[in-house]
Amino acid sequence: MKTVSESKAFEGTQGVYSHPAATTDCEMTFAVFVPPQAAQAPCPVLWYLSGLTCTHQNVMDKGEYRRVAAELGLVIVCPDTSPRGDHVHDEKDNWQIGTGAGFYVDATQEPWSRNYRMYSYVTGELPELIAERFPVDMSRQAIFGHSMGGHGALTIALNDPERFRSCSAFAPIVNPSTADWARNAFATYLGDDESRWRAHDACLLVEDGKRFHEFLIDQGDADQFLDDGLRPWLFEEACRKSGIPLTLRMQPGYDHSYNFISTFMEDHLRWHAARLGA
Amino acid sequence: MKTVSESKAFEGTQGVYSHPAATTDCEMTFAVFVPPQAAQAPCPVLWYLSGLTCTHQNVMDKGEYRRVAAELGLVIVCPDTSPRGDHVHDEKDNWQIGTGAGFYVDATQEPWSRNYRMYSYVTGELPELIAERFPVDMSRQAIFGHSMGGHGALTIALNDPERFRSCSAFAPIVNPSTADWARNAFATYLGDDESRWRAHDACLLVEDGKRFHEFLIDQGDADQFLDDGLRPWLFEEACRKSGIPLTLRMQPGYDHSYNFISTFMEDHLRWHAARLGA
Repeated sequence: MKTVSESKAFEGTQGVYSHPAATTDCEMTFAVFVPPQAAQAPCPVLWYLSGLTCTHQNVMDKGEYRRVAAELGLVIVCPDTSPRGDHVHDEKDNWQIGTGAGFYVDATQEPWSRNYRMYSYVTGELPELIAERFPVDMSRQAIFGHSMGGHGALTIALNDPERFRSCSAFAPIVNPSTADWARNAFATYLGDDESRWRAHDACLLVEDGKRFHEFLIDQGDADQFLDDGLRPWLFEEACRKSGIPLTLRMQPGYDHSYNFISTFMEDHLRWHAARLGA
Repeated sequence: MKTVSESKAFEGTQGVYSHPAATTDCEMTFAVFVPPQAAQAPCPVLWYLSGLTCTHQNVMDKGEYRRVAAELGLVIVCPDTSPRGDHVHDEKDNWQIGTGAGFYVDATQEPWSRNYRMYSYVTGELPELIAERFPVDMSRQAIFGHSMGGHGALTIALNDPERFRSCSAFAPIVNPSTADWARNAFATYLGDDESRWRAHDACLLVEDGKRFHEFLIDQGDADQFLDDGLRPWLFEEACRKSGIPLTLRMQPGYDHSYNFISTFMEDHLRWHAARLGA
């Protein structure tokens, strides 16, 4: 693991690191905020998964999580959203597939399957590295994310509910199988057999019997992607039918940007901290 | 004036605007945060001047000012740091002169004098536009900035102390006339006669009898530019000799980045708000 940069922030340390990842067969970069409490004892870990076109850096620059994470004693880990590199296949003219658009799945289709294995990377290889190299209490983990990263958080939590104490999302893609901007990526990465998509679709995972303790979702009602891509009411209905507690808050006037995320970041951090015993 | 973007944040509005500026003879872009209180009554204005290489966007993305500005009812205006455009002279290989390096002076030397008139732009043309187009109480203004923008804030306040209720800075260049990274710019913009530089050098302005009510400066002691470019102790000495109240806080472990700025942003906003009656 290489240290790309480390900088003091709110009495903690905001770092950027990279490592040669076996799962994605490329150098992967990620950001970690370590709060000052970590000098005394390992801290719980909150995973933040980012949206389409993002790297580890967008939320690090614009998410405004450090102040409250430093107060509450949370380690915040922010992975990249896809493999990257000259040898990594891409569709350069399509922001919804390839670089910045890993969708937190393991691709099964050539030529994507060599590198596009973000599910295994985010749930397996990176957590092992984090556990080894940072002052973290891996028995206390939570996960959240934005848009495509909200999709990632919901599906990863539903697939492994014992690992996470809590899960929340900002404007998540809750039903990618029927969302304009995700169907093409799912077909490209996973093939045309839509039964293979279900393990990566929050609404369908719930329909198929997967459960999680409780979700928190914030959604701006001025979000330009609300009706075509996001449609949180579909997940609300799935949770209602299956008895999963969901707090869905429609936030009037907020759009899809980091101005929305940063506004409600503090709420999410405090909500997770309460469930992480932080 | 054109609206480039507007987005709800912390119940206020973060906007980006542009206009054809007469002083700099080019299209200028700037950011304005309008807090929710502005719906009831005009709000005081806090000017933030950015450092070398920045645009209006860096502090907008990374400064973390919106939460507290929305609480306190402050309008935050963030100008660009130089003129820009194909017709604007530049030294492309030198980040300390030209684009992103206006130094808040009016250049007198050819070919810079046509566009590089950031002092007049920031103290004259832009305030007129802000007064006309935004819900601001121009009788309550304050100014702060970072690095080159800290230099801008200190010198502008010292040159027009009646206009500003308060002035603070993060890691300012306090004595550009003797700072490695500013001497070349000053000579390029203002010519070799160093007596013409004094009106834009905080230490020399104080030496020449200019006064301001009170300053607050935060400076990281792990700042890579501390000893060569910043040297706040020179301004501390100038203020001490002339009886100007200065609070200079050396912050252990902090560097020159926005991780430092965002950490102490809240302190500065509250300090200004107390003096602005916000």
